[in-house]
Amino acid sequence: MSHYPMVPGHEVVGEVLEVGSEVTKYRVGDRVGTGIVVGCCRSCSPCNSDQEQYCNKKIWNYNDVYTDGKPTQGGFAGEIVVGERFVVKIPDGLESEQAAPLMCAGVTVYSPLVRFGLKQSGLRGGILGLGGVGHMGVKIAKAMGHHVTVISSSDKKRTEALEHLGADAYLVSSDENGMKEATDSLDYIFDTIPVVHPLEPYLALLKLDGKLILTGVINAPLQFISPMVMLGRKSITGSFIGSMKETEEMLEFCKEKGLTSQIEVIKMDYVNTALERLEKNDVRYRFVVDVVGSKLD
Amino acid sequence: MSHYPMVPGHEVVGEVLEVGSEVTKYRVGDRVGTGIVVGCCRSCSPCNSDQEQYCNKKIWNYNDVYTDGKPTQGGFAGEIVVGERFVVKIPDGLESEQAAPLMCAGVTVYSPLVRFGLKQSGLRGGILGLGGVGHMGVKIAKAMGHHVTVISSSDKKRTEALEHLGADAYLVSSDENGMKEATDSLDYIFDTIPVVHPLEPYLALLKLDGKLILTGVINAPLQFISPMVMLGRKSITGSFIGSMKETEEMLEFCKEKGLTSQIEVIKMDYVNTALERLEKNDVRYRFVVDVVGSKLD
Repeated sequence: MSHYPMVPGHEVVGEVLEVGSEVTKYRVGDRVGTGIVVGCCRSCSPCNSDQEQYCNKKIWNYNDVYTDGKPTQGGFAGEIVVGERFVVKIPDGLESEQAAPLMCAGVTVYSPLVRFGLKQSGLRGGILGLGGVGHMGVKIAKAMGHHVTVISSSDKKRTEALEHLGADAYLVSSDENGMKEATDSLDYIFDTIPVVHPLEPYLALLKLDGKLILTGVINAPLQFISPMVMLGRKSITGSFIGSMKETEEMLEFCKEKGLTSQIEVIKMDYVNTALERLEKNDVRYRFVVDVVGSKLD
Repeated sequence: MSHYPMVPGHEVVGEVLEVGSEVTKYRVGDRVGTGIVVGCCRSCSPCNSDQEQYCNKKIWNYNDVYTDGKPTQGGFAGEIVVGERFVVKIPDGLESEQAAPLMCAGVTVYSPLVRFGLKQSGLRGGILGLGGVGHMGVKIAKAMGHHVTVISSSDKKRTEALEHLGADAYLVSSDENGMKEATDSLDYIFDTIPVVHPLEPYLALLKLDGKLILTGVINAPLQFISPMVMLGRKSITGSFIGSMKETEEMLEFCKEKGLTSQIEVIKMDYVNTALERLEKNDVRYRFVVDVVGSKLD
C-alpha cells in the first residue's frame, strides 16, 4: 500500500509561488505552464536536440518516480514543483484556462504539423475524431490556413464542426460516395480515434506523400495493406506531444492567432461528475479544473 | 481467349532500333533502358511534377492495355515500342546486363532514400531480407556512405552479406540480445520481406524519426501497435519504384560509384529452369535474360 495517493492532471497552468536559487527564467508571480513530461536524462540525443519528450528516461508528471525517488504528482494538486526546463511562460493575453488544454492537446497537434513540414497555408488536412485533440486539430489547422475536413462515423457533429469550430468540410466515413470523392485529396489526417479501427479508408483519402498521423495510444494492433502506403508514398506515423520549445512556440502562435480552446471550467467538487460525463463523451471539449478557486478556506 | 500471349520483363535494356519523327532525345544505336511504367496521363499532379510513377492512370509495361487499346508487352520480347518519356539513356561505362536490374530494384531503393532525405553519408540503415531489392539496398546504401546492417531470419546469409556485399553488420531477427542491443540505432530500414510478418521488432530498431520503408507488395494486412510509431515519431511508409528522372540520376550515381549488381546472365531457353530456381530463392540476386543473344538465327 502506497503512502502517496496519486494526483493526476497533465495540462497545468498556474502562478510561480517560489523559485530555486538557480532558476533564471522565472520569477515569483509569473504565469507559467507545465505539461505531461517533467524530467529527462539531459544527455541523450533527443535531450540534446530539444526533443526531450522522446528521451527514454523521461519522467511523467504524475504516476511516475522523480529523480529524488518520490512519486510525481500532477496538476490537480494545489502546488507542484517542476524543474525550470519543463516550465513555459504563458504569454500575456492568453487566459490561463484557455492555455491549459494547449499544454497537451494543443502541442500534440502543433508539433507534428511543424516537424512533418505541414505548417504552410493552403494544405488540406483531415481530422478524424472530434474529441479534445481533434477539436484542437481543427482550430490549429485552420489558424495555419489549411482547408480542414472533419471525418466522423456519424452525422451528429456536422453542425458543431462546420459552424462552431469553423471546419471547411464534414465527411461521414460510412458515406461511400463522399469518401470516394475525397480520394487522394488530403495532405494529412490526424487520426485521434482511441480504439482499434481500419486504416485503409483513411489512407485512401491521402494524396501522394500524405501522412496519417496517429495521436491515440491504442494497445491493440492496427492493420493496413502495404500497397496502400507504397502506391502513393504515404506514411503511417505518429507523434508524442511536443518539446518545451515547441510548446512555447505554439502558445505564441495561439496568442497571435487569437485561438481559443473550447472548454468547460469546473471546480474540484465537480470532478467525479466530470469523469462520468467524460466516459459518455459528454464534454465540449475539455474540462478545466479551477484548482485554486476550489480551495477550501 | 486472348490472341496475344503475355510477354513479361520489367527491367529492360537495349539498343534503339528506330525513332519516331517527334523523338528528340534518342537516336538509333543509343543504349537505353525502360522500366515497369511505360505510360501516364501527363496531366495530373504527379505527372506534372516528374513523379509519373504515382499517376493513377499509369500503364504497366506488360499485362496492361496501352493508349492504342493493345496489350503492353514486356522486355522479354525481341523488340519493344516505348514513348520517349519512359526511356532513359544508359551511361557509357555501365554494362547493359549490370544496368538492367537497376531499372527496378535499383531505383526502388534509390528513390525513397532521396525523397525521404536519407541520402547523406553517415546514416545507419537496415536491410531486411536479402533478395533482389535487398542486395541492391546494401550496395546503394553503402555507396551513399551509410553504415548498413543486414537483418535476416537465419544466419545463412552472414558471409554473403558481410564479405561479398560489403554490409557492416548482420543481425539475426531471432537473436533477442542482438536485437535488443540494436534498439534505437537505425535511421531507416528497407523491409523487402514479401510475406506477412510482424513489424514491431523492426520498428524497435529505429531511432527517433526513423522510417520503415516497405518495398514488398503484400496483400494480407500487416499489423503494428500505435505507441511503437508515436513514441519515437517513427514512420511506416513505402515507395513505388522511382520516376524516370530519378532513374537517370540513379544510373549516373551507380556509374560514378562503380556500383555493380550481382546477377546471373541466362539465355531464353533457360527461363523455365530460372523460374523454378526463383521459387526456391536460388539466385544471387537477379537473373538477367540475354534476349538478343538468345535469338534463333
